[in-house]
Amino acid sequence: MSDPANISVLAICGSLRQGSYNMATLRAAIAAKPADMTVSIADISAIPLYNEDVRAQGFPGPVETLRQQIRMADALLIACPEYNYSMTGVLKNAIDWASRPPEQPFAGKPLAIIGAAAGMAGSARAQYDLRRSCVFLDLHPLNKPEVLIGQAQNKFDSDGNLTDAVARDLLRDLMANLAIWTRLIAKKA
Amino acid sequence: MSDPANISVLAICGSLRQGSYNMATLRAAIAAKPADMTVSIADISAIPLYNEDVRAQGFPGPVETLRQQIRMADALLIACPEYNYSMTGVLKNAIDWASRPPEQPFAGKPLAIIGAAAGMAGSARAQYDLRRSCVFLDLHPLNKPEVLIGQAQNKFDSDGNLTDAVARDLLRDLMANLAIWTRLIAKKA
Amino acid sequence: MSDPANISVLAICGSLRQGSYNMATLRAAIAAKPADMTVSIADISAIPLYNEDVRAQGFPGPVETLRQQIRMADALLIACPEYNYSMTGVLKNAIDWASRPPEQPFAGKPLAIIGAAAGMAGSARAQYDLRRSCVFLDLHPLNKPEVLIGQAQNKFDSDGNLTDAVARDLLRDLMANLAIWTRLIAKKA
Amino acid sequence: MSDPANISVLAICGSLRQGSYNMATLRAAIAAKPADMTVSIADISAIPLYNEDVRAQGFPGPVETLRQQIRMADALLIACPEYNYSMTGVLKNAIDWASRPPEQPFAGKPLAIIGAAAGMAGSARAQYDLRRSCVFLDLHPLNKPEVLIGQAQNKFDSDGNLTDAVARDLLRDLMANLAIWTRLIAKKA
Repeated sequence: MSDPANISVLAICGSLRQGSYNMATLRAAIAAKPADMTVSIADISAIPLYNEDVRAQGFPGPVETLRQQIRMADALLIACPEYNYSMTGVLKNAIDWASRPPEQPFAGKPLAIIGAAAGMAGSARAQYDLRRSCVFLDLHPLNKPEVLIGQAQNKFDSDGNLTDAVARDLLRDLMANLAIWTRLIAKKA
Repeated sequence: MSDPANISVLAICGSLRQGSYNMATLRAAIAAKPADMTVSIADISAIPLYNEDVRAQGFPGPVETLRQQIRMADALLIACPEYNYSMTGVLKNAIDWASRPPEQPFAGKPLAIIGAAAGMAGSARAQYDLRRSCVFLDLHPLNKPEVLIGQAQNKFDSDGNLTDAVARDLLRDLMANLAIWTRLIAKKA
Repeated sequence: MSDPANISVLAICGSLRQGSYNMATLRAAIAAKPADMTVSIADISAIPLYNEDVRAQGFPGPVETLRQQIRMADALLIACPEYNYSMTGVLKNAIDWASRPPEQPFAGKPLAIIGAAAGMAGSARAQYDLRRSCVFLDLHPLNKPEVLIGQAQNKFDSDGNLTDAVARDLLRDLMANLAIWTRLIAKKA
Repeated sequence: MSDPANISVLAICGSLRQGSYNMATLRAAIAAKPADMTVSIADISAIPLYNEDVRAQGFPGPVETLRQQIRMADALLIACPEYNYSMTGVLKNAIDWASRPPEQPFAGKPLAIIGAAAGMAGSARAQYDLRRSCVFLDLHPLNKPEVLIGQAQNKFDSDGNLTDAVARDLLRDLMANLAIWTRLIAKKA
């Protein structure tokens, strides 16, 4: 950690929709963060489809920006929607770009995962696929609490505020745990 | 099937790289197809990142084309690379777009899955994630043979021709089975 | 199918508890079966832990019985609980025994999967692991409907009767679809 | 850690076969352990099939022993075979028993996973299912190195000694990393 008094977190949301429940969950997570943490949100909307031939010519601007943001972050926070029972192509494409050589900027970082979905399982299927990717990427995701906000259509008001108290408490616990976990993992180096 | 004497297959490749092992595997599969089958390859390179707000305005041209190709096909063939232990963002993004309402064009179609990778597992992790998506999409993937071409860098010549006889036999069996499976599933309607 | 007028189904429940929600769901599925189907329930409670050295001496009696029941069945119905985010050891152990050479009795059979759990996801994690096993076993699981009965503690009365109308309708649809699917798959031979 | 100078590891093997490649891999891991670590191997062969009604009467002796061994261990080492594309029923059944209330002895423990299989993927499918279980169990599995010993029949001599130098090096790295990881996780408390 570059600043022992502050944990810098980079957040990535896997949905580009304006009214995304996952972006709304991300904002609720930020509202519940501890005082010694700052969170910025990456913009992945301008990243092109991954193409190895393009990468061989150099990373496109929005990818280089993302890679630099990941490098500088002490920890990551990913809002992981579920489309077709797995991660969104949008999120996976950003990960596919950001993870490429020469160095792999995710390696060794702590991570918290959140997700919301209309179905009962709250993006669970997608989140476990993301967790498997973390093994390859050498990310260290928190185990607990899992934030699986099901029936999302009933848990936000029309301004996108999370109205479900249980989910808000989970997010508070998650962000507090992320701070503790990040300080612990930082001792590894 | 619109033409009982011919099975029309739409193929989708999850890598955009020119020298892609998965595209090379797809070409090898086409070379091994039975006589009563035609295979065309979809172009997914111009599909934008999925955004539900954009979709609400109408499908972009390359997506509408893909959806129409899926609708017209008797069966699908997907070449599924593995990036970061799951499907590529490129493939998943195409599926995310193509699967959206009003109608879901994948529903009820037979499918064959192939994949190649540098590692030993031959894109297995990605293929099982794709198979889980198939449950949601109501696609009917073939169980056997699984085509998991590991150590792909040793199994193609410099022109992208599959030189591994075992893999070529698997592809021949797969394409033959896809014809049988497609004729069977067609009786469901 | 040995008797074209009747579909014989073998049901397997992955929990041994007397008051099991999964066994209760299985009974509800049987109550919702079509008239041209008979369902018998396998007893897997006396199967020992799998040991290849033991198998080399011959299948234990309860395993041989299970294998014979699978062989004779036109289709299978598995009630798949979720323990620790995957299939129960009890169910997996029965599958591990039943699937062993010389012949593999599951191969080519149609299958319907059901599950119930206290959590929201209704045994989803376990069911997808079972579906991956089906690829290896060459079982043909139905895609739809998925029966994922979450918050099971609120959906059965004290006698184990399923009181949730939505779930009952799903089971009726599932069993009707299993009959159609079984007749279709039978044409493959 | 009860003794800061020594890391005590409990190892569990998911196969009961005498000549098990996974047990042989476990022995090779022990041979490659650092000097400040002791490893004992649990005996799970006498654990009955899980039955919640039985548990309600008290844990059977072999389960109580396993639970006590887990409680006392600073870290775990699991040899995870793959049967039918997932964990063995034998391993899962032991986990299902050991994880039950009142207290959950796996919670917070570091874990290293190894596996061997005849196929190319080296028990990968089973290992990722185990890793998903770890989220629920609150185990902290090492990300790297993954030990996926494929084509196991070619990598051990007739006495069960691991003859593959690459795999031996991986096991040495794994055990060294487990020591580092265990000391790190111990600071969490």
